[in-house]
Parts: sequence; C-alpha cells; structure tokens
Amino acid sequence: MNKLWGGRFLKSLDYNIELYLKSFSIDKFLFVYEIKVINAYTKCLFLNNYINYEEKLKIINSLCLIKKKIKNISAEDIHSYLEFELIKYNGDLGKKIYLGKSRNDQITTITKLMLLDEIEKIHILLIFIRKSIINLAETEYNSPVPGFTHLQIAQPITIGHYLLSWNEMLKRDHLNLLNCKKSLQYCPLGSAALSGHNYNINRNTIKKFLNFKNLTENSVDAVSDRDYIVMFAHFCNLIITHLSRISEDMIIWSNNNFDFLKLSDLISSGSSIMPQKKNPDLFELIRAKTGRIYGNSLSILTILKAQPLSYNKDNQEDKESLFDNIYTIKKTLNSFRKCLPILKFNKKNMYFSALKNYSTATDMADYLVKKGILFREAHKIVGNCVQYCEKNNINLFNISLNELKKFSNLFEKDVFYDLSIEGSIKNKNVYGGTSPNQVLKSIQRSRFFLNNIILKFK
Amino acid sequence: MNKLWGGRFLKSLDYNIELYLKSFSIDKFLFVYEIKVINAYTKCLFLNNYINYEEKLKIINSLCLIKKKIKNISAEDIHSYLEFELIKYNGDLGKKIYLGKSRNDQITTITKLMLLDEIEKIHILLIFIRKSIINLAETEYNSPVPGFTHLQIAQPITIGHYLLSWNEMLKRDHLNLLNCKKSLQYCPLGSAALSGHNYNINRNTIKKFLNFKNLTENSVDAVSDRDYIVMFAHFCNLIITHLSRISEDMIIWSNNNFDFLKLSDLISSGSSIMPQKKNPDLFELIRAKTGRIYGNSLSILTILKAQPLSYNKDNQEDKESLFDNIYTIKKTLNSFRKCLPILKFNKKNMYFSALKNYSTATDMADYLVKKGILFREAHKIVGNCVQYCEKNNINLFNISLNELKKFSNLFEKDVFYDLSIEGSIKNKNVYGGTSPNQVLKSIQRSRFFLNNIILKFK
Amino acid sequence: MNKLWGGRFLKSLDYNIELYLKSFSIDKFLFVYEIKVINAYTKCLFLNNYINYEEKLKIINSLCLIKKKIKNISAEDIHSYLEFELIKYNGDLGKKIYLGKSRNDQITTITKLMLLDEIEKIHILLIFIRKSIINLAETEYNSPVPGFTHLQIAQPITIGHYLLSWNEMLKRDHLNLLNCKKSLQYCPLGSAALSGHNYNINRNTIKKFLNFKNLTENSVDAVSDRDYIVMFAHFCNLIITHLSRISEDMIIWSNNNFDFLKLSDLISSGSSIMPQKKNPDLFELIRAKTGRIYGNSLSILTILKAQPLSYNKDNQEDKESLFDNIYTIKKTLNSFRKCLPILKFNKKNMYFSALKNYSTATDMADYLVKKGILFREAHKIVGNCVQYCEKNNINLFNISLNELKKFSNLFEKDVFYDLSIEGSIKNKNVYGGTSPNQVLKSIQRSRFFLNNIILKFK
Amino acid sequence: MNKLWGGRFLKSLDYNIELYLKSFSIDKFLFVYEIKVINAYTKCLFLNNYINYEEKLKIINSLCLIKKKIKNISAEDIHSYLEFELIKYNGDLGKKIYLGKSRNDQITTITKLMLLDEIEKIHILLIFIRKSIINLAETEYNSPVPGFTHLQIAQPITIGHYLLSWNEMLKRDHLNLLNCKKSLQYCPLGSAALSGHNYNINRNTIKKFLNFKNLTENSVDAVSDRDYIVMFAHFCNLIITHLSRISEDMIIWSNNNFDFLKLSDLISSGSSIMPQKKNPDLFELIRAKTGRIYGNSLSILTILKAQPLSYNKDNQEDKESLFDNIYTIKKTLNSFRKCLPILKFNKKNMYFSALKNYSTATDMADYLVKKGILFREAHKIVGNCVQYCEKNNINLFNISLNELKKFSNLFEKDVFYDLSIEGSIKNKNVYGGTSPNQVLKSIQRSRFFLNNIILKFK
Repeated sequence: MNKLWGGRFLKSLDYNIELYLKSFSIDKFLFVYEIKVINAYTKCLFLNNYINYEEKLKIINSLCLIKKKIKNISAEDIHSYLEFELIKYNGDLGKKIYLGKSRNDQITTITKLMLLDEIEKIHILLIFIRKSIINLAETEYNSPVPGFTHLQIAQPITIGHYLLSWNEMLKRDHLNLLNCKKSLQYCPLGSAALSGHNYNINRNTIKKFLNFKNLTENSVDAVSDRDYIVMFAHFCNLIITHLSRISEDMIIWSNNNFDFLKLSDLISSGSSIMPQKKNPDLFELIRAKTGRIYGNSLSILTILKAQPLSYNKDNQEDKESLFDNIYTIKKTLNSFRKCLPILKFNKKNMYFSALKNYSTATDMADYLVKKGILFREAHKIVGNCVQYCEKNNINLFNISLNELKKFSNLFEKDVFYDLSIEGSIKNKNVYGGTSPNQVLKSIQRSRFFLNNIILKFK
Repeated sequence: MNKLWGGRFLKSLDYNIELYLKSFSIDKFLFVYEIKVINAYTKCLFLNNYINYEEKLKIINSLCLIKKKIKNISAEDIHSYLEFELIKYNGDLGKKIYLGKSRNDQITTITKLMLLDEIEKIHILLIFIRKSIINLAETEYNSPVPGFTHLQIAQPITIGHYLLSWNEMLKRDHLNLLNCKKSLQYCPLGSAALSGHNYNINRNTIKKFLNFKNLTENSVDAVSDRDYIVMFAHFCNLIITHLSRISEDMIIWSNNNFDFLKLSDLISSGSSIMPQKKNPDLFELIRAKTGRIYGNSLSILTILKAQPLSYNKDNQEDKESLFDNIYTIKKTLNSFRKCLPILKFNKKNMYFSALKNYSTATDMADYLVKKGILFREAHKIVGNCVQYCEKNNINLFNISLNELKKFSNLFEKDVFYDLSIEGSIKNKNVYGGTSPNQVLKSIQRSRFFLNNIILKFK
Repeated sequence: MNKLWGGRFLKSLDYNIELYLKSFSIDKFLFVYEIKVINAYTKCLFLNNYINYEEKLKIINSLCLIKKKIKNISAEDIHSYLEFELIKYNGDLGKKIYLGKSRNDQITTITKLMLLDEIEKIHILLIFIRKSIINLAETEYNSPVPGFTHLQIAQPITIGHYLLSWNEMLKRDHLNLLNCKKSLQYCPLGSAALSGHNYNINRNTIKKFLNFKNLTENSVDAVSDRDYIVMFAHFCNLIITHLSRISEDMIIWSNNNFDFLKLSDLISSGSSIMPQKKNPDLFELIRAKTGRIYGNSLSILTILKAQPLSYNKDNQEDKESLFDNIYTIKKTLNSFRKCLPILKFNKKNMYFSALKNYSTATDMADYLVKKGILFREAHKIVGNCVQYCEKNNINLFNISLNELKKFSNLFEKDVFYDLSIEGSIKNKNVYGGTSPNQVLKSIQRSRFFLNNIILKFK
Repeated sequence: MNKLWGGRFLKSLDYNIELYLKSFSIDKFLFVYEIKVINAYTKCLFLNNYINYEEKLKIINSLCLIKKKIKNISAEDIHSYLEFELIKYNGDLGKKIYLGKSRNDQITTITKLMLLDEIEKIHILLIFIRKSIINLAETEYNSPVPGFTHLQIAQPITIGHYLLSWNEMLKRDHLNLLNCKKSLQYCPLGSAALSGHNYNINRNTIKKFLNFKNLTENSVDAVSDRDYIVMFAHFCNLIITHLSRISEDMIIWSNNNFDFLKLSDLISSGSSIMPQKKNPDLFELIRAKTGRIYGNSLSILTILKAQPLSYNKDNQEDKESLFDNIYTIKKTLNSFRKCLPILKFNKKNMYFSALKNYSTATDMADYLVKKGILFREAHKIVGNCVQYCEKNNINLFNISLNELKKFSNLFEKDVFYDLSIEGSIKNKNVYGGTSPNQVLKSIQRSRFFLNNIILKFK
C-alpha cells in the first residue's frame, strides 16, 4: 500500500490494472522538471516560514543527489518516485514539504516547463534553417526554374524566388511557435487539487523562482486546462504540412523525367533488389511524418472532447502524443537542416523545362495589352496562337514575326524579348514578384523579419 | 406549441435555439424513407388489428399525395458570374479591368476579407458571452457547489468560482481569435498567377483600399498559402472543445440524480413517445458539434498535405469546411449566449451534494498540518477517519470530537469550522482560489482582461 | 558501405540522416515473422531446385540459432540484420537464398503474418469478455435500473437488458475483426520490387508454407497496398468507441449523486492531496484511449493519401501506429476483462432512481391507448398529468385514482400496476425488449451468436 | 465556350464533370467580397491611369446594380412535417397510427433504408468502373510504361498491368461495401424509445415489409447504435484514398516533363490569366476530396466518443457527414467513370521514359544469377556497372559486350535481350507479374472475381 493516497483503501490495485494505469516510461522526460519545481517550492516554503534555513538546505542537497541517480532507472514508474526518495534522504522533513500542492497542479506545471525548454530548441533549429534558405535564395536569385500551378508548367520564376516561398511558410511557423510560448507562461502552482489551498504561500514567489511570467487566474481551470498542448500541436500541424509540401516538390524534382535535383548519396538510400536505384528517402519520410503529427494532434483533441471539469485521469494520456510531437518535429527539422547545404540543382534541366508549355504566353498577352488590346481579347488571341503552335509542333519563341502578325498586327520584333525566359522574369517587377531585382529586395526584408522574431523570443 | 412532444411544456422554444436545433435542409434526403416506413407500419397495424381496412387505405392514399408535394430546388453557380455581368453592363470596358490579376490571387484575397468580417462578428459574441458569465459569477460568488475531479465529489467550491473557469477558457479562445485576425492582414493581390504581374500597379494602393495592414511577401507563397484557414480551424477546435466540456457538465447537472440545473422550456425539447421527458438538447447538440468542427479542421489539413507548390485546384475544397466552421461557431455561440441568462441553479441540491463524499477531508488534513503534523501523516490519519465514517455510515461533520480524538488528540472543537462547507471554502484564500473574497478579486481582473483584448482588436 | 544496396553509391549516408531513416526498435516485433518467411522461402527454393537438400538444412539450422540471439539486441536497427547473420552462419549460401524477393514484398508479408497472430489473441479476449457479460446479464436479468435517453431518466429497464447492449456492440466488433482477418489472407510474396520476378518459383508453394489462403493478384498493388492496416484501425476505432461509451456510463454511475456502482479498490486509485477520494481511473483511462486509437487510425490514412504508386518510403511510418493500436487494444481489453467480475451494483439506489422523473409516464399513455384513446391524445393527457404532479411535488404512482380521473375517466385501479416499475418492465414484452422474459430469450440467442463466430474464426 | 479561360479549348467541359468541379451554392457567401475587391481594384486602375474617371464611375455603378440582384433562399424544415400533414389529411386517424414507435427507433430505421438504397447505386458505379478498367487493361496489356518506386523509375511494366492494380484496390472497396450492406440489414423498429413497446405488434412483420433480413437484438443498443455510419465512412475512407493515389499518378503523368497523358478538353480547365494552361482539375479535385471524406469520417467518430447510453441528441449531427459522404463518393465515382474512356496515353513518351534510370538493371543481375552468380554478388556487379554508365553518360543497353565483360566474363550476347524493355517485361512471368501473358490471365480472373461479388450483392 505504498501509495500517496493509500489511507482509505483496504485492498491493493490488481497488478495488471495497475500496470495499465501507469504512464510507463513516459514521465521520465518530465523528471528533471519535477525536481526543478520541488526545488523552487522548497525555497518558497522557507520564505513563508514553513521550513527553516537548515531544512531548506537539506532538501536542496538531496535533490541534487536524487537527480544524479535517475540516469539509470529503466522502464520503471517515476511519478511519485521523487517523494519517496526525498523521504529516504530527509526523513520526516521530506514529508514536510508536501503541503498545499496536488499532483493535479504539479503535473501541469512541469509539463509547461518542459515544453518551454523544448520550444527554445526548436526556435534555434528554425533560425538555422531559415538562414540557410535565405542564403541559398541569394545564391540562386537569378537562376530560372519553371513555376508550376496544377503541377503544369505555368510561368518561369527564379530558384531564389521559389526558395523564399519556403522561408515565408517557416516565418509563419516561427510566429506560431512564439504564440505557443506566450500561452505557456502562466504558472498553475497553488491551484492544488482544484480549489486552491489553505496555506499562506504567495504564488508570485514560486512563479518567479520558476521563471513564469504570469499566474493562472482560476484554480478549476488551471488543473483541467490542456490548451497549451493543443497550441503546440497546431504549430506542429502547420510546420509538418509545409515540410510535406516542400518534400513533395523535391521528390518530384528528383524523378528521372524531371531531373532537376541530383540526390546526394548523403541523404538517399538504394534498393535491395534493384541495383540502379537511388531514392529520395529523406523527403519521403518527412512527407510521411505528417501522418504521425496529425494523429498526435487529433489524439489530444479527442481526449479533451466533452471531458467534465475539472481534472480527470484522461489527461494522463496527453503526454504520449505531446512527447512524440516534440521528438518528431525536432528530428525532422534536424534532418531537413542537414540536407539544405547539399541540395544540388540541375540548372540546365530547369532552364530547358522552363521553355516548355508556352510558359511565357501570359507575357505575350500582356504585350498586347500594352499595345492597347483588352486583356480578355489578348487572352483569346494568345490562346489561338498556342493552338497554332501545338498543331505545328513549335514553340512560342520559334514562331516567326510574320506568323505572329496573322494573329494580331500589333506584334513587333520586341515581343521576342517578352517571350524569352529572361525577359518574362525581369518583367515581373512588382513587390514580391520574381524579377531578380525584387528577389534581392525580398531577401533583405526576410533577414530583417528573422532578426525581428529572434528579438521577440528573448 | 405545435410540437410532437409539447404536452408538458408551457413556453415555446426560443426561435433562434429552435433554428439551431434543426438539421437544416439535410433532412430532405430522408423524407421519402420516412414515408416508406409509415406506409409499412400502417399495413402492419392493420394486420395486427390496430386499424381497419378502410383506415389503412386512407392513410396509404394520403401518403401518396404528400410525397408529390415535395419539390426540388437545384443549386446555383456564381463563380465567374460577376465578370460576365460586368461585361453585360459595360461592354468592352468590363473586359478592360481584368488585367494583372488572376483567380489565384483573387480567391485568396476575398476569402481573407470574408474571414476578417466573420471574425469581427465572433469577437462581438465572445464579448457578450464573457460579460454574461462574469456577471453570473458575481451573482453567485458565494453559493456552494461540489467541485469534481474524476467526476467524484472532491471539494466544495462556489458557483462563481466555477463559472470563472468558463471565462478563462474563453479568454484563451479570444486570444486565439486575435492571433488569427493578425495572420489575415496580408494582402495577396498583385501576386497574379504565381510570379507577380507585368503592370505598373502599386500593391500598396489596393492594400489600403481593402484595409489590409501588410503585403504578402512572396508571390509563389501567396497563391498557395492556406495557413489562415488552419489558424481559424485551430481557434474553432479549441473553443468547441471548451463548449463541449461546459455542455457535458450541464448535461450531467440536469440529470435527475443530480438535479443541479432546472432546464428552462426555452432551451429544451421533449419526447414523441415519453410524455414526461424534458431534454437538455441544446447542450447535447453543442457537445456534438465538436464532431463537425474537428472534421472540418482535419479536412483542410488533409487537403494541404503534400500539395506541390504553388496553386492547385485542390484548394477549391478548402471553402466548404471553412464556411461550415464559421457557420457552426457563430450559431453555437449565439445559442450558448441565449441560454446563459436562463440557467436556473438548484442551489439547495448543490449544497446537499457538496456535503457528500467527505468533501472537506483535505481541510481536516490541513487542520492537522497547522497543528504541526506532517502532511503525509495527516493524509493517512484522515484516510483512516474516512474509512471509519464509511463503516459507520456517518459524515465527517457528524462525527463527535471524542471519536475524532481517537485518530489524533490534536483535534479540537474548532476543527468543525474547517470541516463545514463555508469554512472550507473561505480557507481557500489564495490567488485564483475559491474563497468568495478571491472570487470577487478575480472578477475585477477578469473585467480588466476583457477590456484589454477589446482594445487590441481595434 | 554495409548496405544491401550499396553498389552504386560512392558516399555513405550522413549519420544523423541515417538515424532518421531507420525504423528504430519498431521492427523488432516483426523479426520472428521475418525468420518465418525466410524459413518458408528456403524450403520453397529447395523444391524449385534453386538450392539442394544440404543447403536447405544448413539455412534452416542457422535460422534457429539466429532466432535465439535476438532476445538481447536492444535499440539497434534490425531490418537487414537477418541477411547479414545468415551470411555469417552460411557464407555464400546465405547470399544464395536472396533472389526473386525484395524488401518491398517481404515487409508487407511479415506485417500481415504478425497481424494475423495478434488478431487471434484479440479474438480470445473478445470471447472471454462477451461470455462474462452474458453471464452477468443472466444474473441480473430481473434487476431494475433506470434507462436513460439524453442522460435523463426515461424508462425503467433491467440491468441484464442493459448489459446485453454491451454484448451487441462487441458482437459487431467481433465481426469486424473477422472481416479484418479475411482481408489479410493474401500472400504478396513473389511480387518482388513491383513487377514480379524472373524466377521459376511457384507462389502457391510459399503461400502454403506460410498458411495464407490466397495469392495477391497484382504485383504493383501488392507492394503498395496497406488497406489491411486501415481495416484493423477501423476495427480499433469502433471497439474503443464502444468501450468509451461503456466507461462513460460507469464513471457517471460511480459519481456520488448516482452511487449505482461501488468502485472496487482493485480498479481504483486515490488522490495525493484529498484523503477521501476513490477514483474510477480505469474507466477514465479507457475513455481516454479513444484519443490514441483515433490518432493512430488517422495517421495511417494521412500517410496513404495521394501517395503515388507503387511502394514509397512513406510506408515505413505505417508500423508505429499499427503496433500502438495492437498494444493499446490488447491492454485495454485485458484490463476491461479483469474489471467485469468485480463490478458491484448498488441495486437499491438503482431502484429508487428508477422511480424518479415519472419514468413510467409512457406506460400511462399506453394504458389509455388500450382503453381506446388515440396515442397523441393520450400523450397530451399524461403530459398534463405530469405537470400536475410536478406542481404538487408528488409522483405518478402516489397520485390517487380520483385525481387521475380528473384527467381521464378511463383510468381504473389497474393502472397502478402499469405505473409500477415491475409492471412497466414486464409490459415491454417484445423481441429485444426489456421484459425479464425477453432478456432470458436474448441471452440464449447471444450465446448462440457467440458460438457462431467462434466457428467462423477457425 | 463561355469560360474565362476558353481560348485554347476546342470542346466544352463534360456537363457532369462541370457540375462536379463547381463548388455548389457555397460560393454565395463570397460574392459580396468579390464585388468589394473589384470595386477597389477599379479605383486602383483609375489611379494608375489604366482607366479614366468616367470608366471608373460606370463600373462602380454597375457593381451596385449587380449586388442588388443577389437573392436569399432560406432553408426548409421537414422533420415532423409528415405527421402534421397526415393529420391534416386524415384527422384523428392520422394520430391513431402513432403508437409503439418513437423517433428514436424510427430515425435509425429510415437512415438505414436510405443508406441501403445509396449503397446499391454505388455498387452499380463500381461495376461499371471496374469493367472499364479491365477492358482498358486488355487493350494495353502489352504497352510498356515505367513502373515507379519512391517515384524513381524502377522497372518497366505494362500499362495493362498497371491498370489492373487500380482494379485490385477497387475490388477491396467493393468487398467493404458488401460488408457495409450486411451490417445494415437489421431492423430496429419496435425498440421504441429504448426499452421496447407495450403493444402486440410482431417485429418480424414490419421487418419483412421493409425488406430487412434481421431484427436488432437489443432495444437499448438499437436506438444508440450508429456503427453502420462508421462502417460506411470506413468504406469511403479507403476508396477515396485509392482514388487519390490514382489521381496523384495521373496529375504527375500529365506534367509537361512526363507528358504520359494527354488531357482531354472534356475533363480539363484553363487559367483566367495564362492562355496556354490546361489543368488536370478533375484529378486534383478527386485528390482533394480525401479531405472532405476523412473529415466526415472523423466527425461521426468524435460524436460517438464517450456518449452515454442510450439515445442522445448528439446523434442528430451524424447525418450531415453521412449525407456528404454519400454525395461526395457518388459524384466522385461518376466523374471518374466518365474520364476512363477518354484517357489518352502518350505511349511513345512512356516507352522512352522506361529506358531511363537503367530500369532493367535488376534483369542484368538476374541474368548473372542464372549463370551461377549469387544474387548479392550480382547486385554489386551491376551496381558498379551502373556507376560506370553514369560516369560515361551511356545506357545499360548501349554498353558494348566488351565493356560488360570487364565487370563479369559471364556476360554473353543474349544479355541484351534481358536488358531490353520487351525482354525484361516478358521475363516477369510469375502469377501476378507484369509479363503480357500473365496480364491476360489476370484479366480473366479479374472478370471472374467481379462477377462473383455481383452475385453476392443480390
């Protein structure tokens, strides 16, 4: 009957049921945060005269010793382990510090602390990745690649411009991470089981010790709230979605009919049966991780649905999916980070592909508009022109001026500049457009925005 | 009172609640099957001598007539309607304005504008609801109700304190809504198909006309980004989760074994077969809406997963779930808003229930701690005391001082104050705790926080 | 460069990327099935004259040795471990058996074998649980309990009748499990990478060795199909939904205002702060597992969405969620199984509760119908009667005959039998109804249906 | 040809496909915002001198007129309409037939009847589609196309073989549909509110009238069971997943760098800005429908999670997602059906692509195995050979015999047959393999399996 709550019970739990009720191994990650909290709480008890200076010292010392011991505890249960250890080290004193505190408010406190730490690590990874992308975009600010809509070649853009779209997605993720961090800065300690406690302990003291910025406002809410886990899941959902879209592009670009991307041996693997294969495994796996993340995110929502207030045992299950989300995102970002510097673009293939599918047809229509034709009319003229090219198996820029004049006599020699890949790209000289000029400006702004969020994270 | 179950009801359903309870238009599909069943059932009643042959005939004939009355209304298409109408009204001029703009950047622009408008409406509903809750909490700042953990009676709290936990959940939702609004304030117009346009049109001009705060930074990203729909879905996920938890409590509180809540006729409906029934339909339906919202939110994520850049037709599908999310949340909040002023608490039943399950046992332990016992020891002593009470079928506050002294001779007469509901509640005098004193303070702060977010929304 | 596919590669994988690509530890579960397959394949090669008798023997023996070694391999990678071990034991012979087989067809074969085994174990658990429920229903075939709709007391039923509804849900789950088993009985081996192999090896031979019933029909489909994982996820979704509904009832029944269920110490735990608490943890945790299962099921669907044919690395991710589904369901069923024999019903409380909320009002209306009143009229009369009782704070069966006659002069003394709990229950004498007589008949049929599915599983 | 993008198109969209591509009624919400944007854009064009003041005025005025033209159509309610109509037609008799029946058992009965009807329609669509696919496979039983794994060219297969993999997926869906049908054949009528009724009405009579095969076994379960909706959702999940995988392939095959598929004007649409575009909209939209289906399926599960027994109002919400699932699947299958006969394969491009990436390298290894080399050794030799080819920019079949002999002197002239696309394909002569011979056999069996399930549906 070695349970924290055994007093009123006559029989022990069935052994198998007990195993089922345990949060096996999962809690280990949280242990260091449990120690952090008990440490702060002990200092707080001292300041409020519940324990004296020597008692405080004894407890703090024993916490150091206990911390060292954990490394080699395997698959055991750890939740109330700390309390028993503290009693072992400090005797009755160990029991003394357990007052005015419930597992209900403690578990949510240490989960928040842990998540705040992990967010810091993800923040660092995001900075590194965004910097790499922006640098890569700078190198390729002027290299053409076809831009796709509906996976059809649409218009030529530059690789630099394309890569900056990755940065924009991650910029929004970075902001989501910041919002998530802000939502975590409320200390629940002092809410006890659900109604607050009977002791004269200032909640602000322990808040400061644990580096929280605010106090939770209502004890019933504080022990039942798991919104911060959903906030983090939301961040994970969007970032993995973005990475899945990037990966999809890279997988397609690696396909032999595209051959835009040369897969480095460092990030590929082969086939046990087909000797010639080199597969974009890394990007496939990142794409697949979407499944895990969406699943984890749904998991926590399902657990919360229609839970009566306040705390219920159901919330023990929140941790599996939270931990897996953290683990998956960190590993994925780390692998993605590693592959950025070794992306090898086949620029020749990109260029030739950008010539396909009459990719500058819109520029031809815009040319006519400049000469006074209404856009809808111009659209139709160019449409007919494309039909003609298709029938004769030629390209827009191979067509002769004479042939062009059959469709509209406004065409002059200068149309061929607008129809070239270089001309088409340069003409998109609008804020956020693909002209090299605009791409360089956007790179400047992107660096500014990145520094900006770094400041906000501090 | 034209309802199948109206017999025991005095007042009609609130009209808006009634609309919400309806499964609008959806049922039309089922109508023919309803007729089928009634047809068969009528024949069956005839065979079992409940009706005679002529009666059977009459019913069957009328069913045929009714079936014919149902009409079909076909669905309309509106997408490029405007351009054709403009041409109809303005001739060539109508065609002239279509340049430098693609449906790709236009559709995302108008979706953002629409969502910004709807967010404003939801914001207003949230203000109204939060104000009502805070006012209700003020009225009941001192009325006891049992607080539950694991749905077991845990400790007495006040209704006011309980209601403030609703406000805390909605406070976080309100903040999520604000974040969502911020993420929408980037104007995509000028991104054209995916690479920007060739015209000399300043994107800042149209941004100002449409009241956006910023420009999207990259045209490839601008036409493929749907993060704002996921942001809004995230807001919806959490607020419906909160409402489902609140509803679950209200449904349980309305149960006849609880009888904490007297269901107003304005928000309940009855049974077509059981004349005595009065059901908490509104709360059941809110609880069920979680399904719709989670489904819609998953929908948009699934659509985005592994979509290649930039725009794809897939994104047409984002709207169904977005519209349904907006519609569902608005209707739900509006119905919830209506039911707040007519919640009738049976305070007597709450009080008697708060006496059950030795709800002040923790206070007994805290009493002993004040007298110098270690908390873990006190916990055990009280545990034994509860066992004793259970065996003798008495309550903690019915026990005599002599009996108490058998468990610890530190017990004195003043323990009975701590064991009373009033004493227990008053003793939880910590920031965010349930003592009436703290509840009143929290109400002040809650009003301040509400005003704060209203300012930020401007 | 110790990879099965290293031939064409010049550089090794980046170490961290390699870690990310690995299916760490997960594969261990599958190892025993990998050995099974290689064993069968070796025999098959012998029969088709690719190896001779001595060679066959040598391989088979080494497989036994390797199998013994695995127990103590920790967190390592195991996927191609077997091949290297076989080469270690058998030299060139070890290499010889690797022909006409790819990891693509092998991984799906062993996953199916593993799942078939696990389904057998779950089948056994289901038999045990359903038998217990039916037996329990037999014991309580005549004990009244209130039946709820909208969580309002609706009509009295018997505990036995209520428990049989559990059996019905699990009956459908059992059938789903059978369908899942059937969908697994197609052997993919021989599909090789995706197009079949060049060797003269009869696929039927190995099919028989591995106890499959059929061959997969198309090699492209065979290596990319993961439907069987979705089939199993579907089974898991429904059974955990059922168990969550049962658990919800048990949690509510354990609440102190209900007190229908006395929680055994064997399945409950307490509170670290509140000494009097005894919580229905087991049922809360089962309810929460819905989150895990739904999440896992979504995970596999998300992975499959829009995957191009045929095999992709994405499918490596299918295993985490499959294994977790298996583990969770087995553990949950096992815990649920243990709690069935120790459910203690407080029948007295159930009886008194069944008297509440005018639970036999429908019987009063039916009484009037028997006397010739139309049901809709009877419904109204009883509705008014309930209003009268409510106003005067009396119950339907406390009302005097004289008072009743004011509502309809068709009421006679015998109405009080219909209004009693016993009478009401007995009157529900329809197939599948709650009368004790029908409950006993249903128990007979339930046992018959159970035996039936056991036969089909063989 | 009244489309914004019609210029380059010769034929109109198929009418049914066009309906499918429409976002029916949904767009109405957005219309006012479209007007807002055009209004602002017009002003912007004026400021940038693209239109003059009078032109601006004319446009703005016409926008006002158009806005007024939009009308609202309100939604109708039908739920208890029938009962009132019946009373209107039949007077008291209309009331008489309402006995022994509750909306609880009636709503689940009619939902089942409706679903059974819809399943029949989907069944017919599946037969049609599978027949078309098998016929198409027969036509192309011998046409080469590259087979992909990891989206890398892996081995040559035939189009016929590839298409049969579609049939296999749909075969499993067909079986799921059958299981779903079976699960629906239990008539709940007679369960009344939850406990059965008091009348002497034989449930078997009405069962027969309504063509059900069985009776539900337990009235409590009968009114709360919604498993059949989850069963159907499961069917929908898998079939839309399959269609999304097929669509993904078709979208990639339509890409200009592949050019495997010539998009018929009948199933494509264009761009409002880019005159040359022809987009695989139909396949994109089918891919996107996965979102809707997964969302609907999650919706019903979420609604059911932890619902207390028996009937709750929550179940009203099951219908939206069920109806949308039915509607979406029927429309999707119907559109897919229409596009099958007009798929135009560019066989020349397929053939040339099949030559890429050393697609017959595995056959080279198999050749060496036939000559006595161990497979793992052969794999290495071919790997080196591929490296050599890559370095010298030649193909496996361009390499001279002399060069080959440097890698292994077992190579003889006949290796070039094995290295040819025709040879490689013919060699895959195993049950379910890609050799034309096997494809024809599989076509026979596929027709047999299809007839088989048609019989079971009767």
